[in-house]
Amino acid sequence: MEKAEIIRLLRQFKNGEAGEEEIAERLMSPGVESLGYASIDTDRLARTGIPEVIYSSGKSPEQVAEIAERMHKRGIPVLATRADPGVYRAVAEKIPDAEYHEQARAIVYQSRKLEMSGGYIAVVSAGTSDIPVAEEAVVTAEFLGNRVERVYDVGVAGIHRLLNKMELIKGAGVIIVVAGMEGALASVVGGLVDKPVIGVPCSTGYGANFGGVSALLAMLNSCATGVSVVNIDNGFGAACQASLINHNLKHE
Amino acid sequence: MEKAEIIRLLRQFKNGEAGEEEIAERLMSPGVESLGYASIDTDRLARTGIPEVIYSSGKSPEQVAEIAERMHKRGIPVLATRADPGVYRAVAEKIPDAEYHEQARAIVYQSRKLEMSGGYIAVVSAGTSDIPVAEEAVVTAEFLGNRVERVYDVGVAGIHRLLNKMELIKGAGVIIVVAGMEGALASVVGGLVDKPVIGVPCSTGYGANFGGVSALLAMLNSCATGVSVVNIDNGFGAACQASLINHNLKHE
Amino acid sequence: MEKAEIIRLLRQFKNGEAGEEEIAERLMSPGVESLGYASIDTDRLARTGIPEVIYSSGKSPEQVAEIAERMHKRGIPVLATRADPGVYRAVAEKIPDAEYHEQARAIVYQSRKLEMSGGYIAVVSAGTSDIPVAEEAVVTAEFLGNRVERVYDVGVAGIHRLLNKMELIKGAGVIIVVAGMEGALASVVGGLVDKPVIGVPCSTGYGANFGGVSALLAMLNSCATGVSVVNIDNGFGAACQASLINHNLKHE
Amino acid sequence: MEKAEIIRLLRQFKNGEAGEEEIAERLMSPGVESLGYASIDTDRLARTGIPEVIYSSGKSPEQVAEIAERMHKRGIPVLATRADPGVYRAVAEKIPDAEYHEQARAIVYQSRKLEMSGGYIAVVSAGTSDIPVAEEAVVTAEFLGNRVERVYDVGVAGIHRLLNKMELIKGAGVIIVVAGMEGALASVVGGLVDKPVIGVPCSTGYGANFGGVSALLAMLNSCATGVSVVNIDNGFGAACQASLINHNLKHE
Amino acid sequence: MEKAEIIRLLRQFKNGEAGEEEIAERLMSPGVESLGYASIDTDRLARTGIPEVIYSSGKSPEQVAEIAERMHKRGIPVLATRADPGVYRAVAEKIPDAEYHEQARAIVYQSRKLEMSGGYIAVVSAGTSDIPVAEEAVVTAEFLGNRVERVYDVGVAGIHRLLNKMELIKGAGVIIVVAGMEGALASVVGGLVDKPVIGVPCSTGYGANFGGVSALLAMLNSCATGVSVVNIDNGFGAACQASLINHNLKHE
Amino acid sequence: MEKAEIIRLLRQFKNGEAGEEEIAERLMSPGVESLGYASIDTDRLARTGIPEVIYSSGKSPEQVAEIAERMHKRGIPVLATRADPGVYRAVAEKIPDAEYHEQARAIVYQSRKLEMSGGYIAVVSAGTSDIPVAEEAVVTAEFLGNRVERVYDVGVAGIHRLLNKMELIKGAGVIIVVAGMEGALASVVGGLVDKPVIGVPCSTGYGANFGGVSALLAMLNSCATGVSVVNIDNGFGAACQASLINHNLKHE
Amino acid sequence: MEKAEIIRLLRQFKNGEAGEEEIAERLMSPGVESLGYASIDTDRLARTGIPEVIYSSGKSPEQVAEIAERMHKRGIPVLATRADPGVYRAVAEKIPDAEYHEQARAIVYQSRKLEMSGGYIAVVSAGTSDIPVAEEAVVTAEFLGNRVERVYDVGVAGIHRLLNKMELIKGAGVIIVVAGMEGALASVVGGLVDKPVIGVPCSTGYGANFGGVSALLAMLNSCATGVSVVNIDNGFGAACQASLINHNLKHE
Amino acid sequence: MEKAEIIRLLRQFKNGEAGEEEIAERLMSPGVESLGYASIDTDRLARTGIPEVIYSSGKSPEQVAEIAERMHKRGIPVLATRADPGVYRAVAEKIPDAEYHEQARAIVYQSRKLEMSGGYIAVVSAGTSDIPVAEEAVVTAEFLGNRVERVYDVGVAGIHRLLNKMELIKGAGVIIVVAGMEGALASVVGGLVDKPVIGVPCSTGYGANFGGVSALLAMLNSCATGVSVVNIDNGFGAACQASLINHNLKHE
Repeated sequence: MEKAEIIRLLRQFKNGEAGEEEIAERLMSPGVESLGYASIDTDRLARTGIPEVIYSSGKSPEQVAEIAERMHKRGIPVLATRADPGVYRAVAEKIPDAEYHEQARAIVYQSRKLEMSGGYIAVVSAGTSDIPVAEEAVVTAEFLGNRVERVYDVGVAGIHRLLNKMELIKGAGVIIVVAGMEGALASVVGGLVDKPVIGVPCSTGYGANFGGVSALLAMLNSCATGVSVVNIDNGFGAACQASLINHNLKHE
Repeated sequence: MEKAEIIRLLRQFKNGEAGEEEIAERLMSPGVESLGYASIDTDRLARTGIPEVIYSSGKSPEQVAEIAERMHKRGIPVLATRADPGVYRAVAEKIPDAEYHEQARAIVYQSRKLEMSGGYIAVVSAGTSDIPVAEEAVVTAEFLGNRVERVYDVGVAGIHRLLNKMELIKGAGVIIVVAGMEGALASVVGGLVDKPVIGVPCSTGYGANFGGVSALLAMLNSCATGVSVVNIDNGFGAACQASLINHNLKHE
Repeated sequence: MEKAEIIRLLRQFKNGEAGEEEIAERLMSPGVESLGYASIDTDRLARTGIPEVIYSSGKSPEQVAEIAERMHKRGIPVLATRADPGVYRAVAEKIPDAEYHEQARAIVYQSRKLEMSGGYIAVVSAGTSDIPVAEEAVVTAEFLGNRVERVYDVGVAGIHRLLNKMELIKGAGVIIVVAGMEGALASVVGGLVDKPVIGVPCSTGYGANFGGVSALLAMLNSCATGVSVVNIDNGFGAACQASLINHNLKHE
Repeated sequence: MEKAEIIRLLRQFKNGEAGEEEIAERLMSPGVESLGYASIDTDRLARTGIPEVIYSSGKSPEQVAEIAERMHKRGIPVLATRADPGVYRAVAEKIPDAEYHEQARAIVYQSRKLEMSGGYIAVVSAGTSDIPVAEEAVVTAEFLGNRVERVYDVGVAGIHRLLNKMELIKGAGVIIVVAGMEGALASVVGGLVDKPVIGVPCSTGYGANFGGVSALLAMLNSCATGVSVVNIDNGFGAACQASLINHNLKHE
Repeated sequence: MEKAEIIRLLRQFKNGEAGEEEIAERLMSPGVESLGYASIDTDRLARTGIPEVIYSSGKSPEQVAEIAERMHKRGIPVLATRADPGVYRAVAEKIPDAEYHEQARAIVYQSRKLEMSGGYIAVVSAGTSDIPVAEEAVVTAEFLGNRVERVYDVGVAGIHRLLNKMELIKGAGVIIVVAGMEGALASVVGGLVDKPVIGVPCSTGYGANFGGVSALLAMLNSCATGVSVVNIDNGFGAACQASLINHNLKHE
Repeated sequence: MEKAEIIRLLRQFKNGEAGEEEIAERLMSPGVESLGYASIDTDRLARTGIPEVIYSSGKSPEQVAEIAERMHKRGIPVLATRADPGVYRAVAEKIPDAEYHEQARAIVYQSRKLEMSGGYIAVVSAGTSDIPVAEEAVVTAEFLGNRVERVYDVGVAGIHRLLNKMELIKGAGVIIVVAGMEGALASVVGGLVDKPVIGVPCSTGYGANFGGVSALLAMLNSCATGVSVVNIDNGFGAACQASLINHNLKHE
Repeated sequence: MEKAEIIRLLRQFKNGEAGEEEIAERLMSPGVESLGYASIDTDRLARTGIPEVIYSSGKSPEQVAEIAERMHKRGIPVLATRADPGVYRAVAEKIPDAEYHEQARAIVYQSRKLEMSGGYIAVVSAGTSDIPVAEEAVVTAEFLGNRVERVYDVGVAGIHRLLNKMELIKGAGVIIVVAGMEGALASVVGGLVDKPVIGVPCSTGYGANFGGVSALLAMLNSCATGVSVVNIDNGFGAACQASLINHNLKHE
Repeated sequence: MEKAEIIRLLRQFKNGEAGEEEIAERLMSPGVESLGYASIDTDRLARTGIPEVIYSSGKSPEQVAEIAERMHKRGIPVLATRADPGVYRAVAEKIPDAEYHEQARAIVYQSRKLEMSGGYIAVVSAGTSDIPVAEEAVVTAEFLGNRVERVYDVGVAGIHRLLNKMELIKGAGVIIVVAGMEGALASVVGGLVDKPVIGVPCSTGYGANFGGVSALLAMLNSCATGVSVVNIDNGFGAACQASLINHNLKHE
């Protein structure tokens, strides 16, 4: 536990924001805040460069709201993903200033912004139906202190749309490519740039798409070098890795 | 049974090439020549535009050779696919002029050529490892009376290689795209031409390629219109459909 | 950009239908109309023979309506697939003359018809439950300027129903076969005609049907030559390829 | 244990064919003959209508030969399936009169024939490559006391070949249909007869055939009524069920 | 077309039940009654021993009702499977005497009963949750003129429940075994009887059950001889095959 | 049937709780209580150490309630799993003292507690979303007479949370590990303890999680020894096996 | 590191069995012995109750032999699984007294036996082809200090073979059930005993067996309580868990 | 084409190393060198940061050798992956100084080294059987101008082995984690570092490992942030992306 954190705890105790019991327990088991049903990993930001984030699916709105409040109290920036409007309402009761990003289905609250990286991350999407996943990547990347450029609806069926945007894409430090159906966009972009490409297969499509498996396999088998892949629809995960890379790049 | 066929049978009888019994049976059950283990579909060319073709896998070299000989005797042009050199040797004993296409693993013998189509079919392949499948398509298409143009090793990892060849591809009446790994080439070509594209997914690759499933799914989910698909590694089947189309096109 | 298109833009500017800004941008990035969340591929018809089509799934009714309106304004014929009645209502507010094909779940609006092909496409379906997919193929093919003949509910469990209709089927330039369950109809038709057959596997069925996989695999493994396949339930895609073929055939 | 069996055991004891120990154990645990690594189910024929049969795969030639000899000694008719020539040689050393069916890969020895059924079973196969599986069905059915009629290479790509043979097929008490690739033959036959059809999917094919899965799914999803299915390549299993049915039919 | 049918048509014409046009068409294309969206296979009962049956899924209640009415008018016994109460209401408006079997989700109407077989079919189910599928088999088998004995909830977790009922099971001419989860019941029954066993895998279960795949694979791989399998949850199909067998058995 | 059970039956008869018919039948077919749609396995507790338990899914609330009542009347402790609130309401009408565990979706009623084991079972879960499955394990284990310690939300993304709790985990007689996503927790725990670990893969997650398959495969392939696995989301099954083990351990 | 281990190291140093360098490194990084390509986990026995075991597959015979020798030198009992005869020869050069279990494909060497448990483990197998997997379980269990009883070839196709052996099975502390094909044996045994059952699915079979998947799914979906499962063909893993349980049982 | 390249071509022409024809063609189609069966992408290094690399699988040794020689002549550094010793012998005849890395199955020849990055890449592997894949990553990364640190055999079954090495791992700019079986190592490492982790699932294992699918799914579903994944056994691909990242990092 860092000194700053200990001092913060002591002040909370003095101000009556937290009782003797609670403060004692936190000092005893550093790095964890226990709620019974949840054990918040309070030093994840320091350890991994990404703070603990709330995956809302499978949790009740009340659970999300309580975890968010606890994190907020400890000064941890709050990001809740896969949050529907009902979850947002529950959180907003506890943290009125929390913002809701509807397309991304994400709730964000940051009392202090995370350190800003230089350069930018390009988020490239194949079709309009992929935008919710792309937006999850955008919101996450901005939350983690990155500038983002969106390049949307540039799938390979009309490849001139992509070629028109190559300058913007090549200028990025890392490129996130979001595509459903046959996921060919990741390979085409990967063959045109000298930056790491992180592919996000989308569940967009039907039939032999199998909920995103077609795009996932395509990206895993990319003939272009420099492409790695995250889980289907995992815009959040792509942004986390992109941010870890982008924050450590030399930006002239 | 056409009159020409009946006359041919009568002449074989007169010349002693076939006995009374054999000729009688053929006149009785028209459209089939029976070998016990095989029933040759003798009027398939007239009915479907493609003659009966021998799929060698799972048959003994002797069986392939005997079927080939019977077809040859009836004037049916002979194509045997998936034939390894041992099969070829067995066939060559019966039909010394039969040719062997090693990369395509195909045996061809045509006493008279099938009617030639106008125009040409383009066979486009993504990588060098896809060539055996592409060659199966080429040999089959030529056997069926089509001119073919090969455009090989133009995968999307270096898309300028493809763009250099677009004039040749656009000039074709039908385009066969052969690709393994992520199979993106079919979508990219499909987005650039106004001709039907037949995708042949290849088993080229490893790991999450699953023996060609990645390319198969990619092509089935193509975001480009005008792409249809045949079985994995089925260069033969793609050429059959391409030939049916090409023979009926208006070629100015 | 063709001259006719430039003139159309200039007139829109003069008439006040579009502002200086908008017209300037279109002249700058030809072939794309940008809506932020969508980049309309405005010269797809010229390039690929099929105009850009709106896949409604995963888009809000408002997005579909706006894209449709923009296309309509530029003179692009409008087809929106996978559109439920709510999407139609949104489109109809912007384009009151748009038609809704309920079984096909498709919205169509064409100020001027696409050039009509000679000959016709046969759409053959195995069972009554496959009709929505068959109708998507019919509506698409007609939209693209083809005459269509329907042959419905002729599955192989009562093969005389099919044999009764063979004359109509054989007369087509291209044949689309729509079948769920075991998808055997594509092979049986393929073995009886000398025209290209495009199989559309349907998700009709249950259990080991796996959402259409049984029919998909059956069609990919067809023992009949001349059969290619599109994605499960993809009546639209089959019609696109059939139209590309049909428009280029010699029709005596 | 039936009296006849007890008497047989006593005679073996008296003749010195088996020792005191062995005979005692057999009288104690009736219905089982134990070899340590195998427990022969000696009354399976009486109980299920099918005697215990040796599945040779995964057993050493010596194990198969020893089990065969023990069965032979107890008067149980011997059938060993999936037996390659090396297994046959080991068995022939112990039972010189055992026959080997090469295509079926089956070893048969019957000192007394099983009771013969009236009527016959039709074994119908789609292609030449399916014959080994069809022959396993034929050999098994004959071993179990049934007359068999073979109808080979009548796949749906040339459906007239099948229609020519319908009288023979319709006359059977039960019909076994063996087919690989898309397995459509089971549905087509099932739609033309009023007898039970047992489908045997074959692993014949390649690519999206997935070792017989395409034919398996097709047969499970058959639109024709009266079709049931056994495991891929399981000619033996189909013949067992066909025999159980055929032996109990009224044959006028 | 049989004479009786022709006479029936002539009488309908005379009585004004059907117009000139309709009767003429039926005489022209015998064996089919066309509704545009459906082609009723009117001689399926004579040809296959099972009449055409309506699979309600994917059809509107009105379509089912109209098809049922047409069949009824032609004297074909009516069975509609997978019918929910809404479908039943639509049918009952046209055929007020139609019965609804709620658990089986089946509608039945027979003006004259099909010929009754001797003997009986046993329908054995593993658990209470499998009963809807078992009841579909029962209703279908009775509709087809068979006596049925139910043996329910005798899964292998308490094998004494099954052993208590073996006499009833062994007495049947054919046995249908309905089981979800691991589907072991088919093998255990198959090992105890000398009658054909038709396994119906159920989708009962969760997780690695994969919608019935676990039971399907278990039954296909049964170590007991004499077991064949139909599609997951296909009680209807099992009863059809059981009926074909049962109607032809010798019943002393 | 044990004497105590016979006496209980006689008393029920005398008291008028059950009629002559019912008692006679129970004495005749011991070990089964038949409800037509269900055959209750009344001596399962004595035979397997676990009483018959009601799996509510696929049964109507009324069926669950009736089975529960019958078991209750015979003195069998009642556990109904996968029960939603509607099922509970139906049961509570018959057994007002039945308890409902909402997170576990389980109904419990025990007039007399099962014999208590020494020691305890640890139930360890990876994330908050896995808690419903973990609670099913907890409720089941307690029902079966075990003390349980919960260790929740200690997934490997913050491994210090787990290491903090190792003393509690190591002290258990058996350990149940509940984890979704990549299921790594089972391997990590398995590598740190000398007690049997039973893994419960959860369907928590999305995309390439495939409803829990990712965790299932991970646990089956665990590099740590001493890990076995039950079905996805099967907290109940894990607790049953843990209880069988725990009840027989030496607890010093 | 325990004192006994330190003393052993010091003696090795003094005796010249190991040099200064080597002993120093071992004292520095306790619990690991590094070979560059391998890091032997030297305190796994103390930590997990099972010593580090060598999985030979994917290692060269020389690597296995060197790891075995190092473990032997440190007094760790040696078990190498999946070892073919060539691996054994390499090991025997370094440890001449090592034994080879051919059916189990396992190498064993123990200078001092592990502590012996009371009671015994029953290893039950369905068929003769499953014996290699069963023997891997037997050898492993004996190596870990357990008495084992074998019950082989008692599959459910002849269930009397199993019922004859129930006393022996019920007497065990833990039961390992090894079965391929449909894997029903695990459920049947699980329904008859009050001891934990560990299922080992085998890859025995063909076709829709999919290399053991059929048995794996069957066991995971067992309707009997008290069954858990390990990986396909993983006799070793089953024995490890069985041993952990058996060593801690009360054995009266 | 850069000026330096043009000058090099002119000199080759003057020196007689290449003829008029060849030089003319290269000047005409810059960026491609055509061999008929292969189209070498000569400016891939400049465009994507990674030169064209030869994937040897599916190519003949002669083809690999000829491609290598052409690349060598143009000054492109040569890396051939998946190369068995026969391929190496063919290459060594043309480029005697080429090195062969046996474990990695890679051939390397660099006349001038690629520019060296600062910092280093850590390659972490779970078990000894994963080393060939790890070595492919090491050889590739070094070829691309990176320093590499190996951390082998630190799988989670003995997690102290990993924790001992965390300083070395944390010091890397990028971390490649190679693991088969359940692939848990990627998640555990990902939860302990603030650097990007690239997971390489290995086909190490058996049974439900499905050729690496278990590890692939585990890594895609990692609960740790900052983990992306490449294809199964694709050490090459992981190294390419790691190199793109590492070359652009700030290394203090």
